[in-house]
Amino acid sequence: MSGQVSDFVSAALGRKKLTLLIKDAALLNVFTGETYSASIGIYRDRIVYVGQDLDGLDSIKTINASGKTAIPGLIETHMHVESSMVSPSRFAEAVLPHGVTTAFADPHEIANVMGKEGVKAMVEDSVDLPLKLYYYAPTCVPESKAVTPGAELTTDDIREMLGWEGVWGLGEVMDYPAVLKGGEKMNRILQIGAKGDYVIDGHAPLLTGRELNAYISSGAEADHENFTVATTLEKLRLGMYVKLRGPYVLDAKKFADALAGIPHPYNLIFCTDDVMPDNLARLGHLDYACRAFMQAGMDPVEVVRSVTLRPAAHMRMPHLGAIAPGRVADVVLLDDLKKFSIGLVVANGVPVARDGELLVKIRKTRLDSSARDTMKLSPRRLGDFEVTPPVSEGSIYVNTVDFGGSERKDVGEAFAEMILTRLSRTKVRVTDGRIKLGDVALVFVFERHGKNGGRAFGFVRNLIREGAFATTVAHDAHNLLVVGTNTGDMMTAANLVIKSKGGLAAVRNRKTLAWIKLPIAGLMSDLSLEEVAEEMKSMRAAFREMGVLDHPYMPLPCLLALSVIPHARITDKGIFDVDNQRFVPPFAS
Amino acid sequence: MSGQVSDFVSAALGRKKLTLLIKDAALLNVFTGETYSASIGIYRDRIVYVGQDLDGLDSIKTINASGKTAIPGLIETHMHVESSMVSPSRFAEAVLPHGVTTAFADPHEIANVMGKEGVKAMVEDSVDLPLKLYYYAPTCVPESKAVTPGAELTTDDIREMLGWEGVWGLGEVMDYPAVLKGGEKMNRILQIGAKGDYVIDGHAPLLTGRELNAYISSGAEADHENFTVATTLEKLRLGMYVKLRGPYVLDAKKFADALAGIPHPYNLIFCTDDVMPDNLARLGHLDYACRAFMQAGMDPVEVVRSVTLRPAAHMRMPHLGAIAPGRVADVVLLDDLKKFSIGLVVANGVPVARDGELLVKIRKTRLDSSARDTMKLSPRRLGDFEVTPPVSEGSIYVNTVDFGGSERKDVGEAFAEMILTRLSRTKVRVTDGRIKLGDVALVFVFERHGKNGGRAFGFVRNLIREGAFATTVAHDAHNLLVVGTNTGDMMTAANLVIKSKGGLAAVRNRKTLAWIKLPIAGLMSDLSLEEVAEEMKSMRAAFREMGVLDHPYMPLPCLLALSVIPHARITDKGIFDVDNQRFVPPFAS
Repeated sequence: MSGQVSDFVSAALGRKKLTLLIKDAALLNVFTGETYSASIGIYRDRIVYVGQDLDGLDSIKTINASGKTAIPGLIETHMHVESSMVSPSRFAEAVLPHGVTTAFADPHEIANVMGKEGVKAMVEDSVDLPLKLYYYAPTCVPESKAVTPGAELTTDDIREMLGWEGVWGLGEVMDYPAVLKGGEKMNRILQIGAKGDYVIDGHAPLLTGRELNAYISSGAEADHENFTVATTLEKLRLGMYVKLRGPYVLDAKKFADALAGIPHPYNLIFCTDDVMPDNLARLGHLDYACRAFMQAGMDPVEVVRSVTLRPAAHMRMPHLGAIAPGRVADVVLLDDLKKFSIGLVVANGVPVARDGELLVKIRKTRLDSSARDTMKLSPRRLGDFEVTPPVSEGSIYVNTVDFGGSERKDVGEAFAEMILTRLSRTKVRVTDGRIKLGDVALVFVFERHGKNGGRAFGFVRNLIREGAFATTVAHDAHNLLVVGTNTGDMMTAANLVIKSKGGLAAVRNRKTLAWIKLPIAGLMSDLSLEEVAEEMKSMRAAFREMGVLDHPYMPLPCLLALSVIPHARITDKGIFDVDNQRFVPPFAS
Repeated sequence: MSGQVSDFVSAALGRKKLTLLIKDAALLNVFTGETYSASIGIYRDRIVYVGQDLDGLDSIKTINASGKTAIPGLIETHMHVESSMVSPSRFAEAVLPHGVTTAFADPHEIANVMGKEGVKAMVEDSVDLPLKLYYYAPTCVPESKAVTPGAELTTDDIREMLGWEGVWGLGEVMDYPAVLKGGEKMNRILQIGAKGDYVIDGHAPLLTGRELNAYISSGAEADHENFTVATTLEKLRLGMYVKLRGPYVLDAKKFADALAGIPHPYNLIFCTDDVMPDNLARLGHLDYACRAFMQAGMDPVEVVRSVTLRPAAHMRMPHLGAIAPGRVADVVLLDDLKKFSIGLVVANGVPVARDGELLVKIRKTRLDSSARDTMKLSPRRLGDFEVTPPVSEGSIYVNTVDFGGSERKDVGEAFAEMILTRLSRTKVRVTDGRIKLGDVALVFVFERHGKNGGRAFGFVRNLIREGAFATTVAHDAHNLLVVGTNTGDMMTAANLVIKSKGGLAAVRNRKTLAWIKLPIAGLMSDLSLEEVAEEMKSMRAAFREMGVLDHPYMPLPCLLALSVIPHARITDKGIFDVDNQRFVPPFAS
């Protein structure tokens, strides 16, 4: 709150000039669900008056809002800045025009690279932005013992981070097996959360019944991993804040229809999680989810509550999420409620964007040299990609991690199926000591944090058809992952990414088809969102040419090393059988 | 939370025995509004499982709940323990059988008598009760400068109290004129609230429009002073937590009908405020309000949400207010939802009451000698009640504080009209230097805290017909107030109350009709609620005989000295014109 309580009172009574007056909007009241004409009086960062008695109320600035619907600024409670590949300041620039005025981000990507210092760098880069950008303290860094991350977060680190201004709650508790087993470190972390009454974000994709109850009993109070209606309703009923992501990963119509049977579900929320830069530029951010649910026929009041009042309640920030006196002056004017077309955006009492255009200048990122020196690998040579099969001629069996084409029509089920790999045995030809690649692609993961210089390889199916793709956006440890059908292209792609200190590179026949430089922690660019979006567009075009398995939500190679997603992954330590929690060798016996 | 997170997880999974299992209830789900059959697994003070898969789940104790509706324990967010005239431990004993498992009390009555030490005594008497009894830090002690209280609370006191365990938020900000004026002390108090993100309870009986907006802008987020539908809807729309008190002070049917037009009002709550002991014993506590709104046709889900989930959200206690894993195990079984008939009550995982009978033994009060020595007056003599009119024979005009009979049919309007007095001039006869009392009664208020030994007198109409009534329950300063139609009875009544170190006494023709001894701070008895209720019944009978203006909510003489209620009051300093904030002499010029 910037100012004395008595100043706000004075402004409401007309004894002080308002700093901003939004006149004659159609106010969608999130408390009552009514819509009626009202003017919104603002003094500095707070709303002080909502009504139509403007007699004697002067304002420094007045905006005519007639014909527009006023709703509170949108609140995002589960997301990762790094996934949009830009720095926090550039991210703020990108999402404010979409009506997002508050966001809670889990910085576990940078934490896997830089640890506590990475989180601190993000927090410090987010102070004083017009976007209120808070962070969770990540709880699962690394995500498992099957990877070598750049850093680990200890329980002491977590306790320390929770004391920082701008850190608010515990980030998604991804390691649900540890929760259910009662793992010691996990128990200590949850105990910190329980004692401090912190918000604890969850992650419980496959849990149901008793296991889901047990998980919620641990204190994890929210979950964004919702693909099917049935488990989503189960979570709603058990009091979890259910966070629905956009239409990339679920069938909005199916969800809207099912939820229509539950009028005013108290704990329904929308979120974005990971938004690729090109999607953010083209389709939007949290507003995109709102549009999708509007189109799917959800009650507009429920749509708006799901991104305003309820997220504020979930995050225990009662001064956010509503257009009412005493609340933070975050207001969005919609040209059309049902189309959810964002016009003016006011954040902290200041008009920050109009019709998609930013109205304020946002400072440069403060992420400095320490965040720009996280690539510890020297250039790769061809020999680094050499694989010696057990025979030099003939056929052998290799263990492959298979991505599966989905037969399902439902978006959510299809997405879930797409990311859930299978471990299988595949016959490959060996000629002159070399494995014939093509149907089967080769994967190398190089530990790139200067920890042990380790590397491992494995084989995948249905992930790439030609050429090679290399990336440090390799969740969650973010080592250098290279997948390809020939070692030459693999080396070239790897070296591009090493040269740019992180990023993504697509190479075919030694030709660079696309290259995104992400020098900040190997995850984020220095460019604007628009610029990175253009690069991502080119990258997707390259994917199409090379037959790389892509998904609007995220290109699949970026998830290949994520050792907590069933059923098999390839990390810097080898091929990991997630279900049985053990490594398997590349060559089948 | 009593126990390790991992224990709760283990209990949910059947690896540890549940401590209590409530089997086969009809669960009213406050999140979704659905009702379905479910069993509730509890480990120590937490719910760990809600569902019907009991395979392999053992429990130390099992309760069959088939045929009963399970709802969360009721949460009371605006009330004063002192008004029920018993100590906190006896209060807990009284309300648990009514399903109230959590209460937030504003201890401003005792604070007016004993200051910070009084609050501390209440807090310490409430620790470890089976009722979770929290306190607000009172913000308006004294309520104005027109009274002499036993103690004042400074801003430093308030800051200190907020640091005590068991103190949670700022109590009702009654001095709304100071808020609107921007009074310095009030501004400092509200600033403490804003900085610390504390819950700030409000009190805004007559505010509307810009003034109401200004009041809410100050941070006061709730109001229980709701008599009419129109202002209540205005407050709901402006995002206040609107707390509806029971049917004593509002027309439940009118409210239910109006609110039916606003399905699922996000911020609707019920509360009790002041519950006289006889009403608590006869009609109930927060459950009485629930019954009334049920009868008035309100949607049962809305009724239940108004006393569970929403109060928990308002108080920022997300672990309360729902039957769901991870939540505090406060469960009420209703024999009949619509009748809201309370059967079993479980608090913190322990069955504490069944069918109105307490199942646990609650310890004695800890309120010790310091709280039992607050009556600083010596016995009164007849001369203390002597009044010398300006003439010794003939007619004179006196300024009278008039209570008005109400023509209104609406309960809320009638109550508001009843407590709002008028200041008027009344002709009285003087014979032999004595004023003829009868139509006009005499009032004396004696400062009884040992501050200045002051006293004042004035005249009232329509408050008493015969005899005299004396009380230290004289809001908020709780001085000794005596009202009567003859000085002999007044002296006798006063001396009874002085003798019992506080209380209420009704005397006619020197005969004691009723006497309630309240030795604890002059406000609370040592007896059980049932016993004080019996005494209160006798007191009301005496009121009827003597023609004392009574109301189920509170006998009107107890409000005569409350210097913030319009339009005129009589305090230890004199007759106070509330509207013009000045004293007027008893004899009109």
